[in-house]
Amino acid sequence: MAKPKKTPRPKAQTPKGFRDYFGAEVAQRTQMLQTIAGVYHRYGFEALESSAVETVEALGKFLPDVDRPNEGVFAWQEDSEGDKPGDWLALRYDLTAPLARVYAQHRNDLPTPYRRYAMGPVWRNEKPGPGRFRQFYQCDADTVGSGSVAADAEICAMLSDTLEAVGIERGDYVIRINNRKVLNGVLEVMGLSDDAQKADVLRTIDKFDKVGEAGVRELLGKGRLDASGAYIDGVGLDDAQAEPVIAFLTSKADDTAGTLANLRAAIGDSETGAKGVDELQQMADLLAAGGYGPDRIIIDPSVVRGLGYYTGPVFEAELTFEITDDKGRPRSFGSVAGGGRYDDLVKRFTGQEVPATGVSIGVDRLLAALHMKGRLTTDTTGPVVVTVMDRDRMADYQAIVSELRGAGIRAEVYLGNPKNFGNQLKYADQRNSPIAIIQGGDELERGILQVKDLILGAKIAETATQEEWSERPQQFEIPRADLVPRIQQLLEDQDT
Amino acid sequence: MAKPKKTPRPKAQTPKGFRDYFGAEVAQRTQMLQTIAGVYHRYGFEALESSAVETVEALGKFLPDVDRPNEGVFAWQEDSEGDKPGDWLALRYDLTAPLARVYAQHRNDLPTPYRRYAMGPVWRNEKPGPGRFRQFYQCDADTVGSGSVAADAEICAMLSDTLEAVGIERGDYVIRINNRKVLNGVLEVMGLSDDAQKADVLRTIDKFDKVGEAGVRELLGKGRLDASGAYIDGVGLDDAQAEPVIAFLTSKADDTAGTLANLRAAIGDSETGAKGVDELQQMADLLAAGGYGPDRIIIDPSVVRGLGYYTGPVFEAELTFEITDDKGRPRSFGSVAGGGRYDDLVKRFTGQEVPATGVSIGVDRLLAALHMKGRLTTDTTGPVVVTVMDRDRMADYQAIVSELRGAGIRAEVYLGNPKNFGNQLKYADQRNSPIAIIQGGDELERGILQVKDLILGAKIAETATQEEWSERPQQFEIPRADLVPRIQQLLEDQDT
Repeated sequence: MAKPKKTPRPKAQTPKGFRDYFGAEVAQRTQMLQTIAGVYHRYGFEALESSAVETVEALGKFLPDVDRPNEGVFAWQEDSEGDKPGDWLALRYDLTAPLARVYAQHRNDLPTPYRRYAMGPVWRNEKPGPGRFRQFYQCDADTVGSGSVAADAEICAMLSDTLEAVGIERGDYVIRINNRKVLNGVLEVMGLSDDAQKADVLRTIDKFDKVGEAGVRELLGKGRLDASGAYIDGVGLDDAQAEPVIAFLTSKADDTAGTLANLRAAIGDSETGAKGVDELQQMADLLAAGGYGPDRIIIDPSVVRGLGYYTGPVFEAELTFEITDDKGRPRSFGSVAGGGRYDDLVKRFTGQEVPATGVSIGVDRLLAALHMKGRLTTDTTGPVVVTVMDRDRMADYQAIVSELRGAGIRAEVYLGNPKNFGNQLKYADQRNSPIAIIQGGDELERGILQVKDLILGAKIAETATQEEWSERPQQFEIPRADLVPRIQQLLEDQDT
Repeated sequence: MAKPKKTPRPKAQTPKGFRDYFGAEVAQRTQMLQTIAGVYHRYGFEALESSAVETVEALGKFLPDVDRPNEGVFAWQEDSEGDKPGDWLALRYDLTAPLARVYAQHRNDLPTPYRRYAMGPVWRNEKPGPGRFRQFYQCDADTVGSGSVAADAEICAMLSDTLEAVGIERGDYVIRINNRKVLNGVLEVMGLSDDAQKADVLRTIDKFDKVGEAGVRELLGKGRLDASGAYIDGVGLDDAQAEPVIAFLTSKADDTAGTLANLRAAIGDSETGAKGVDELQQMADLLAAGGYGPDRIIIDPSVVRGLGYYTGPVFEAELTFEITDDKGRPRSFGSVAGGGRYDDLVKRFTGQEVPATGVSIGVDRLLAALHMKGRLTTDTTGPVVVTVMDRDRMADYQAIVSELRGAGIRAEVYLGNPKNFGNQLKYADQRNSPIAIIQGGDELERGILQVKDLILGAKIAETATQEEWSERPQQFEIPRADLVPRIQQLLEDQDT
């Protein structure tokens, strides 16, 4: 007779592309979000927390008429109610699409302009890769309902203040500003009449980061042999036609005046282009008046990321310090935040154009950068651990931790099996505890506690010699009555 | 000829059962979560943030062999890879199921016991109702890997400290403790052999809150006519058989010793029952030693919520102050947190029994309670608003707010259309701004700023008389050079 088949146990695993965050990682992110929220708040922005779940209809971009509208998002269909099919719902993929929905839904109750910040996880249904997760944090600030270029300038100033507030030193970052209208002007003077061709040019410009000036020239012309050996078809422009694009992308000069002059040349007599250059000029003036000079924020037309999406000013914050990539080559850390003006935000809901501008900070990337620079200072010290020498005296040990906690000291009684004392100290070690407190029957009779300085212990273990610490004992006795002041003193001594 | 049909605009609406949180609501919750995290941390617990998404297999409770395993959860199927069907994923419905998965997955790297706290939204695919949402916050702390009743007592003490830390005063709450093992002992002495009958008794006990002693007697016996007029079948026990259950539920005496004596009588010679009563005794002793007396934490066998789920001690925090319900009747606010021991947590993953105990705080309910008691003290003051009198002098206005922000003062320039000055003041009003700053051409020439005290303005508007405020002007001039100290001074004056 065959054995009855057992139900296999479930696998204890996060879904592909998701991960868990422990202890210090959580604390560091929380601390960073608080710092960022503090700056945003000081600039007059209000918190908004929308739900993680939106209707696919409200999120947009995704077609509700296909069977499973989850290209890029996690989506599911609600149960039907009678004959009515259920709505398609999805997890938000950014914080901008929900903002558009919130503003359209609540616009009569919100002030104009509406300045809000939002922070939280977003979800992307993409193929996960190393270091690339399907849930990650964003931290956005947007001004909805202001068409003024002062709003854009302010976002850039705030971004600069934010980066410095979280620990990126001045000189280790730069915020670059470009403007979509300048590019539109360039396309105008090129005389491109065909929308498909315009789109091809936009796509080519987007590759400027990777392929550089020569590469863009080839791609605007006949085409280009790519690094993998594949031939990429070109847009088919002749050299003269391509020239304004090249002039635009390479217009950055030594100073803002020079860059703006180059841009004015590139856009010829295009009115749209002139408006774009004027906006860049105004932003530069406003920022300079606020003390945000080119050591922090510069006009740089080679910034192309997002140019296709935004409708006016576009900005990007790059960390400029060098790191070593996977293959051991030095490169600059790169982008940690980006944003710009997108004036069509609410239109799809209400039919009315509502100007808006904003920025999104990639919190996880920023944390990684600070980690690399050794600038994450979160306290990872574990609790003071009170060991259990006598199982029946748990109340005494609890009283000790109660007193410590009452004085604001992080403390706990060992709650595992107390039989093996070594395990208790191993636990304290694993918890990164600064101090272990021991009281057996003998110590109880004498009204004292044994105190083990685990920080000193670790130092001695490292240097393998106690000589230099000889003045400081690794373990000593204190009167039970002096518990709180003596432990406080030791914790202070350990800190210095 | 028919007009071409337009694509209808998407509806700007949250999905049913979801909502948005604005400004102060977000700040208040953030503040509360920080306070709770502070207490949990001081007790030695470490933060854990698992992903919002889990495999349905890991979450358990839900059957992967039905077509759509989303009873109660939001679930969807991943795309298939080749012949392999995609995994079913779901949003977490609590923070305990993910903890079980995390502990099973990472147990070799985690200390034992593992003490962790977690806070964040959870999702339930339930029919939404008034005040009942499908996304809400939980805030949990659990000790995994300790079978000691000291761990349970500690969780109760921590819950008490937490409630007081967030602003619930002593006397306005009580934490009640019960124990599943005592109930098991009661079932034992009743001599119930039939598991179905045991389950029926458990279900009946769960209704004690609603129907009281007489109701439970009826339901254990022949049955009961319910408030709606429907007849509910009884379990069919005779009076003598039902007696131990009634004795258990009504065993609460004036003091702990009395309650425990009543319980010992109710469980007769059941060993399991005696173990349960011993545990309650130990918890009461430990808590008393820590100073947590019956003014905060009591043994109360009438607490039945969760008795079916937990395996040992069960606890519930209730806010005891009176509120008025929907129908104008007074009732106590009720439960805001609950927890207990659940020793089977990790077993379904690893086959090994791992003891665990923990608590979950319903943050949104706790916020509602504090709101009702008027104890939410979040600062809802808006920014100082610098009005725009001259569009071309935006840089000057930005310089003013830069100086204020540099001094830590929340401030912004009005970024809407400045044409209508009334709108600017209306905006400041809507933002709850304390101060408006005005500088037209005249003021510029004289090197001064006009300062409008909007708090005073609001007070005057309320009382319709300026007399009592006559010493304090509602609008006055300050030298431009004295901006920061004068505004700082005014903000301080407004606070008093």
